[in-house]
Amino acid sequence: MNFNEAEVIATLAEIFRGPHSGVVVGIGDDGAVVKTSPHSVITTDMAVEGTHFNLEWSGAFDIGRKITAANLADIYAMGALPQYLVVAVTLTGTETMEWISDLAHGIAHEAKSCGAAVVGGDLTRGAIKVISITAIGEVEKAITRSGAQVGDLIYLSSLPGWSAAGFAVIEKDGVDDLEAYAIEEFCAPNVDYSAASALADSGATAMCDISDSLITQAGQMAAASGRAFNFFKEAFTADPEFIALNELANKESVDVWQWIFAGGEDHVFLAAGVDLPGLCVGTVTQGSGVTGLEMKKAPDTWRHFN
Amino acid sequence: MNFNEAEVIATLAEIFRGPHSGVVVGIGDDGAVVKTSPHSVITTDMAVEGTHFNLEWSGAFDIGRKITAANLADIYAMGALPQYLVVAVTLTGTETMEWISDLAHGIAHEAKSCGAAVVGGDLTRGAIKVISITAIGEVEKAITRSGAQVGDLIYLSSLPGWSAAGFAVIEKDGVDDLEAYAIEEFCAPNVDYSAASALADSGATAMCDISDSLITQAGQMAAASGRAFNFFKEAFTADPEFIALNELANKESVDVWQWIFAGGEDHVFLAAGVDLPGLCVGTVTQGSGVTGLEMKKAPDTWRHFN
Repeated sequence: MNFNEAEVIATLAEIFRGPHSGVVVGIGDDGAVVKTSPHSVITTDMAVEGTHFNLEWSGAFDIGRKITAANLADIYAMGALPQYLVVAVTLTGTETMEWISDLAHGIAHEAKSCGAAVVGGDLTRGAIKVISITAIGEVEKAITRSGAQVGDLIYLSSLPGWSAAGFAVIEKDGVDDLEAYAIEEFCAPNVDYSAASALADSGATAMCDISDSLITQAGQMAAASGRAFNFFKEAFTADPEFIALNELANKESVDVWQWIFAGGEDHVFLAAGVDLPGLCVGTVTQGSGVTGLEMKKAPDTWRHFN
Repeated sequence: MNFNEAEVIATLAEIFRGPHSGVVVGIGDDGAVVKTSPHSVITTDMAVEGTHFNLEWSGAFDIGRKITAANLADIYAMGALPQYLVVAVTLTGTETMEWISDLAHGIAHEAKSCGAAVVGGDLTRGAIKVISITAIGEVEKAITRSGAQVGDLIYLSSLPGWSAAGFAVIEKDGVDDLEAYAIEEFCAPNVDYSAASALADSGATAMCDISDSLITQAGQMAAASGRAFNFFKEAFTADPEFIALNELANKESVDVWQWIFAGGEDHVFLAAGVDLPGLCVGTVTQGSGVTGLEMKKAPDTWRHFN
């Protein structure tokens, strides 16, 4: 370790410093004091070296952005707006100050893109790098997974599968533009947070993000709502992005539906409702379970727990 | 791994389930929805295998209790009351279901002792075990480190040093009752949360917990308040617990002041004010810095970052 704890904390505090009208006491005390609304949403998501990120694939800025995005997407997926983050980080002691600073800048960048502030954290040492973030947001009326009604349509904020595609081609030499785009979506996805707000504002009855894969989360939403979710493949193939994703899948000799239905890590939003914005991909009916998400083989066991 | 993720999550959700009037949406959605007060305190604290806990020394229940206590103590140290926790855990995949269940029971036990509920979490896989907790509490008027006034006295909720003493004797064979008590305080401290509430209710002008050691946190409070903190060793020696701690230090040929002033991990509360409950150990005056915490040698570099 080429630096001491106080130096690292001072640097991080400087990176995370910034005006936020809700912060009464920021970084530097036992806890942060913040203004909160009558109802808040809380979520936590952790990224572990060797499981969620790989130092050969991703720079610190992208690692910071990606884990922050995972937390922010969960807040938006509840129909809420993120306000505050706390960040706990385990470092091995071999990091450069530049790497740590880049990580913090990635976290701060993604947080600021949503108007959220990092208000506290913890810094520890361990055998591997771990980043654990908790996000807190304000909500008036939360949108859970359990509200889908018979007669609702099913919507996605965009076509999923790009993150899985990026994971499939990340170790290739000499990638083309399409592969480069997919790799970027895997390493540091550009989450369309405004799409979640648009779904919420348009009266979505149920919503979640599909970071664990569409097939997993559609199943969870169908079960929580006590309804059947029926998807139509033609709705996916009609999306303009499908052609490019399918081309990439063919080149890799992969079933494109594996990426779209079982890929995960996309932070695309899944919602039920009527006349919602986005890609309409199915219907909600009486019954239970999910139909229409068939693939050539059973979904892979996902590469990390969550 | 002798179990799958869904099984583990279901078990954890069952352990953490419980009525809490503030929880609108609990475990199982993208985020929890909870009732919050106009001002909330947020804090996060992480425990890493090999740094903060050692599987040869501590069982899962105690590991869970200890990291939870660290978070709860930070909430109380702001003059707040804890309400909600989220828990992110990295497991290696070699744990038994019993170990995981014990960990969760330890977390739930400590949380319930303060009326707080675990409302969400994340479960991931990695090369070492890591537990990261974020606690959220309600506060009317936060007590920071910066409010100490000239004329205030300095108080401790109890004599610090027992955790450091426990760490010193933990690998001994055939410990006596006193050593066993110290080891327990190191492995799973019994934090007197009510002492923090009593200090807050009695008008403490500044407060923090001294988990990083008295000498570190007295320095932080003095600097934040822009005052000098003057401690008197006689006030410590007058405490009934001092005799036992000193006896243990002599037996180990350790300077007892090293444990008391530089030990850390005690979650004893340090406060400034007038007529506060607890052990009165010094005065706040004009000036800067800390006097009276002299030891035979310079404090050890602490054994983890935070």
